[in-house]
Amino acid sequence: MKAFMDEDFLLPTQTAQELYHGYAEKMPILDYHCHINPQEIAEDRHFENIAQIWLGGDHYKWRQMRSNGVEERYITGGAPDWEKFLMWARTLEKAVGNPLYHWSHLELKRYFGYDGILNERTAPEVWELCSQKLAQPSMGARGILKASGVRLLCTTDDPLDSLQWHRKLAKDSAAPCRVLPTWRPDLALSIRGEAFAAYTGKLGAAAEVKISSFRDWKAAMEKRIGYFAGLGCRASDHGMLYVPYEPASDQEVEEIFAARMEGRQVSRQEERKFQTAAMLFLGEAYAKRGWVMQLHFGVTRNNNRRMFQKIGADTGFDGIYSQVPLAELSAYLDALCSRKALPKTILYSLNPNDNAAIGTLIGCFQEPGAAGKIQQGSAWWFNDHKSGMVKQMTSLANLGLLGNFIGMLTDSRSFLSYTRHEYFRRVLCGMLGGWVEQGECPADMEWLGGIVQDISYCNAWNYFGFGTEG
Amino acid sequence: MKAFMDEDFLLPTQTAQELYHGYAEKMPILDYHCHINPQEIAEDRHFENIAQIWLGGDHYKWRQMRSNGVEERYITGGAPDWEKFLMWARTLEKAVGNPLYHWSHLELKRYFGYDGILNERTAPEVWELCSQKLAQPSMGARGILKASGVRLLCTTDDPLDSLQWHRKLAKDSAAPCRVLPTWRPDLALSIRGEAFAAYTGKLGAAAEVKISSFRDWKAAMEKRIGYFAGLGCRASDHGMLYVPYEPASDQEVEEIFAARMEGRQVSRQEERKFQTAAMLFLGEAYAKRGWVMQLHFGVTRNNNRRMFQKIGADTGFDGIYSQVPLAELSAYLDALCSRKALPKTILYSLNPNDNAAIGTLIGCFQEPGAAGKIQQGSAWWFNDHKSGMVKQMTSLANLGLLGNFIGMLTDSRSFLSYTRHEYFRRVLCGMLGGWVEQGECPADMEWLGGIVQDISYCNAWNYFGFGTEG
Amino acid sequence: MKAFMDEDFLLPTQTAQELYHGYAEKMPILDYHCHINPQEIAEDRHFENIAQIWLGGDHYKWRQMRSNGVEERYITGGAPDWEKFLMWARTLEKAVGNPLYHWSHLELKRYFGYDGILNERTAPEVWELCSQKLAQPSMGARGILKASGVRLLCTTDDPLDSLQWHRKLAKDSAAPCRVLPTWRPDLALSIRGEAFAAYTGKLGAAAEVKISSFRDWKAAMEKRIGYFAGLGCRASDHGMLYVPYEPASDQEVEEIFAARMEGRQVSRQEERKFQTAAMLFLGEAYAKRGWVMQLHFGVTRNNNRRMFQKIGADTGFDGIYSQVPLAELSAYLDALCSRKALPKTILYSLNPNDNAAIGTLIGCFQEPGAAGKIQQGSAWWFNDHKSGMVKQMTSLANLGLLGNFIGMLTDSRSFLSYTRHEYFRRVLCGMLGGWVEQGECPADMEWLGGIVQDISYCNAWNYFGFGTEG
Repeated sequence: MKAFMDEDFLLPTQTAQELYHGYAEKMPILDYHCHINPQEIAEDRHFENIAQIWLGGDHYKWRQMRSNGVEERYITGGAPDWEKFLMWARTLEKAVGNPLYHWSHLELKRYFGYDGILNERTAPEVWELCSQKLAQPSMGARGILKASGVRLLCTTDDPLDSLQWHRKLAKDSAAPCRVLPTWRPDLALSIRGEAFAAYTGKLGAAAEVKISSFRDWKAAMEKRIGYFAGLGCRASDHGMLYVPYEPASDQEVEEIFAARMEGRQVSRQEERKFQTAAMLFLGEAYAKRGWVMQLHFGVTRNNNRRMFQKIGADTGFDGIYSQVPLAELSAYLDALCSRKALPKTILYSLNPNDNAAIGTLIGCFQEPGAAGKIQQGSAWWFNDHKSGMVKQMTSLANLGLLGNFIGMLTDSRSFLSYTRHEYFRRVLCGMLGGWVEQGECPADMEWLGGIVQDISYCNAWNYFGFGTEG
Repeated sequence: MKAFMDEDFLLPTQTAQELYHGYAEKMPILDYHCHINPQEIAEDRHFENIAQIWLGGDHYKWRQMRSNGVEERYITGGAPDWEKFLMWARTLEKAVGNPLYHWSHLELKRYFGYDGILNERTAPEVWELCSQKLAQPSMGARGILKASGVRLLCTTDDPLDSLQWHRKLAKDSAAPCRVLPTWRPDLALSIRGEAFAAYTGKLGAAAEVKISSFRDWKAAMEKRIGYFAGLGCRASDHGMLYVPYEPASDQEVEEIFAARMEGRQVSRQEERKFQTAAMLFLGEAYAKRGWVMQLHFGVTRNNNRRMFQKIGADTGFDGIYSQVPLAELSAYLDALCSRKALPKTILYSLNPNDNAAIGTLIGCFQEPGAAGKIQQGSAWWFNDHKSGMVKQMTSLANLGLLGNFIGMLTDSRSFLSYTRHEYFRRVLCGMLGGWVEQGECPADMEWLGGIVQDISYCNAWNYFGFGTEG
Repeated sequence: MKAFMDEDFLLPTQTAQELYHGYAEKMPILDYHCHINPQEIAEDRHFENIAQIWLGGDHYKWRQMRSNGVEERYITGGAPDWEKFLMWARTLEKAVGNPLYHWSHLELKRYFGYDGILNERTAPEVWELCSQKLAQPSMGARGILKASGVRLLCTTDDPLDSLQWHRKLAKDSAAPCRVLPTWRPDLALSIRGEAFAAYTGKLGAAAEVKISSFRDWKAAMEKRIGYFAGLGCRASDHGMLYVPYEPASDQEVEEIFAARMEGRQVSRQEERKFQTAAMLFLGEAYAKRGWVMQLHFGVTRNNNRRMFQKIGADTGFDGIYSQVPLAELSAYLDALCSRKALPKTILYSLNPNDNAAIGTLIGCFQEPGAAGKIQQGSAWWFNDHKSGMVKQMTSLANLGLLGNFIGMLTDSRSFLSYTRHEYFRRVLCGMLGGWVEQGECPADMEWLGGIVQDISYCNAWNYFGFGTEG
């Protein structure tokens, strides 16, 4: 029996262990998509206790606490930090097999040196230990990033963002790593949203363009894209229920845009037409600059209206959309491809059933310009666990070239999440090592070690085009 | 090599064996959803031979016999029992890897003490042995329930049912276990069915309410719910293609109801509106009484019309619906939640692809009132086998709290099916034991043993609120 | 550690090894569905080099080269054969875990005696070796078929085809195996296609029927079916996005047909009605003759329009359709069943998510006339790899009778693909052997060996009704 989470955690074979310890472990981290707040890096935020850093904003944990019947005051409410933490410790006792069980213990081990098991009984000693450690100067945002070996991270930013913290960090010689913005224009495309006209007004102001037409909107977006590019941005990101494709004439789109700006609501179909036009424009703009287009879809958001009204978005009430019309996504990529304007693209579906269809879809649009120009994104959010990763990588290997995979990202708001890169690499090495030991893959360690290093770090670096390593 | 179906069947690791033999095996059985006929318990039904008990009503077996090209007269027709059994034995020889292969041998072993393999050659000796055993007084319905360790079972009953057998059993001090009814009002909701008006008439009679409006219908249903509650009912059950959500005004629903009662057929959309209104009313009624709402969906029924006309429903011609619109189910739960009237709910989809989406959906509606208030039901019907169970539990563990899972039910018409609880527990222990031995879970046997006992029995007892154990 | 691809490749247990080497290995091959060109057999085509035989028409490999960023001139363009091969060798280095990695090495081993690893470094020696071997007289189409143990193969042929090569081969006493045609009338059903009227004209000419109505169309098709039957055809094959079911009156279908023949385009709905009528007619025709109906669906074709315009169909730009409406397929089978005209049918969905629903669907239409009259086809195209096969066979075993499965086909254009039968048999034996060693299946080698031989060869022979073995 292997001990729980020892140094060969998730590495059941000798080959897996050699691949991990010999190749993967030493690679730096490139976190090309996360939701870290750059201000917290710039200001080297410190946390008082483990509840703050773990439970302050982590809706993964909040969901599980609710699943354990915990009252909301111990989750997002006003209960004292210690009580919240205790509720979390109790919840964790029910979470056998959950990735949070692994992540929590991996974080305790790597960042706090705690080798025990967190449960109701040990909660006080864990609380105490973590509070002591967090009081150390090296346990702020910067120290954690450095200790994690993060070389570069990409935040997620609104087109209106001034990027002041990115600017500051770019000039800060003591910055723990490169911190680049990512262009995430969801609000700019939310034409049915109440705030659309107001947002568009602010967009015009930020871009110094008076927006009175869709044409103006495009000009303003283009200027902001240039602004982001000037601060090193290499990627965009979109979050959607699904990627629509319903082309319409320029005139029709202008009419839809005008109607909405005048305060009239537009139909679902008009929304689809506007978004199709906007996405065609944006895809082309990304292609011109060599940016990567990230498409996150298959998410149903804010499914619990009562809780949404009470505590807002991103609080743990989202789900998987099981009926993504991938044919529309295909038509969208095809339209860009026909215009010779298909950017490097990463497809992330929240529905794991889409793995195979996406694996074949990306194969329809590969072209010179990058190895693996169209990528299937790493197992994401609800799939971010061992079996989700194994499924995504097995599917990718079956249908495409695993060796060109750009690998892991955290998608996280937390500085402690960098252990997820370790987790991913262990799963990768476990899988490859298993193939070797079963005789399904040659035992050429130099070759496989190279693939492991590529997927852990090098492929993403080259794919995004981050330039010479610092 | 492990011997076939030995005492460590499905328990590949030492930890799995310890969990099963040390914790799971001794737990009693709570079968909170089955289709057993309570009259057969009350009257202690005995069976003449193995064909009667195995092939008399088991459409799982009928399907496989048809898959083997067997003529219908040996399946549901008039062939002698021995010949039917022989056809089944021949069919079983082709059924390698099928759960019926396991279940059949497990039942032969546990209830008849037969350790051999059933096939064409051994069919005579098995027939002989089973006939002898079935002639014993202890091998009637009551004896089998007692020998199986069943503490409580919930049947599945129509709102019109007088529940006379439940009433009898409640007073019977020699009853082998508690036998409670479950409210299954599918017919009451089948507004497009030919028998709707007639059924509604009978409903009114049973409830002593004259039904001339949807409002009356609700009053009658409420009274029958009260009647069921009076006999200890703690749960409802619904079977549907999918859970619809299309809200309509009270007046519109009344018009739809009135039209149908006057003999006019209603459209599919009107059916959806009626059922949405009915399900909102029912959900609220269940919540008030603390009942559990079970939703079984994703089933296409009676796909073979020729056979349906010949031998009726539930004869082995059902299938998995692959396009369940889970967004409507989510909207339905949300509507109840908004009214603060969401009952404890168990979601069972027949489509195993829905596992992940359901795993996230239940997480959106958890709230204080029960640990795991919204549950994903155990792998069901066509998924009721080792790989189906492992998939469902892995998904549940990845996305929620496995420790709060209410576990297994038989969903069966047969008294011999209680070995499926054993089967389930072995699979559960096999899975947990594997995690421990791979170092993915702490080897804390007291903690894990507790989880095993909870999932085997205790969680369901508490969840349904069956009161003090007898 | 097992050596890469040794004699026990994919056979991790002793039982698996015994099943494979003792039973599966020696069985001949019946390739009941492939895309081999019969002219190449008749003329005993030889290939100059490994690029010609591997890269001349294999869109599986083309896709992966594009995924590696290779320029099209090295793929389908005019680059020298050696350079194309080198590009392939480089691509293969990234293809860890891809079935092409296994297939390529298995083909090198079995047909060329090469035991090394193909990569950029070894490419010259592999090229040299293969060129030498291919120059041998025994390495033409006929020699490869004989060496592979192929006893019978079914090509895929248009109704207009004269079948001249089949005719020639039938009379050729030196033919390496029986070569039968398969009726694939996709073009005849493509009523929205530009060429429909022209095709229908040619169909009339071939059948010597003047086609001026749908009734005539059916008569012409019936005559061509008879022609195919005269050359030993036992099966049809259809390729579709999905199997539609939208019945219409004879008159309506006649009007749709007439409109299209007069040059007017028909709507998507009219296409569905025409195809429903055509498929009902054809299904009945197949049933009358005892033919097998193969339905291949779930494919989105030519997704990349720019490449389609450049290099045409079947060049590596197809994908999985993720929203197949299986309810329509069920209604279609039911309609045939109601008419007592359901032929033996094989369902192949390209979407692996459909496995479970199809497994239940086939169970709804089984009837006497064949063991496993309705079959789920073997893991196909994008699923044709170890994990796809294991999933398909596990699903099949869970839901039906694995022992009646008709097993593997190549679906290939290449003579070297016969190693895929070996690959499949190893996976099958690996799976069964695993069950035995885990105690989930009795260790009755005679019984299991029989099942292995049935699935490898005998079931398909009996199912298609190829008559006495030659």
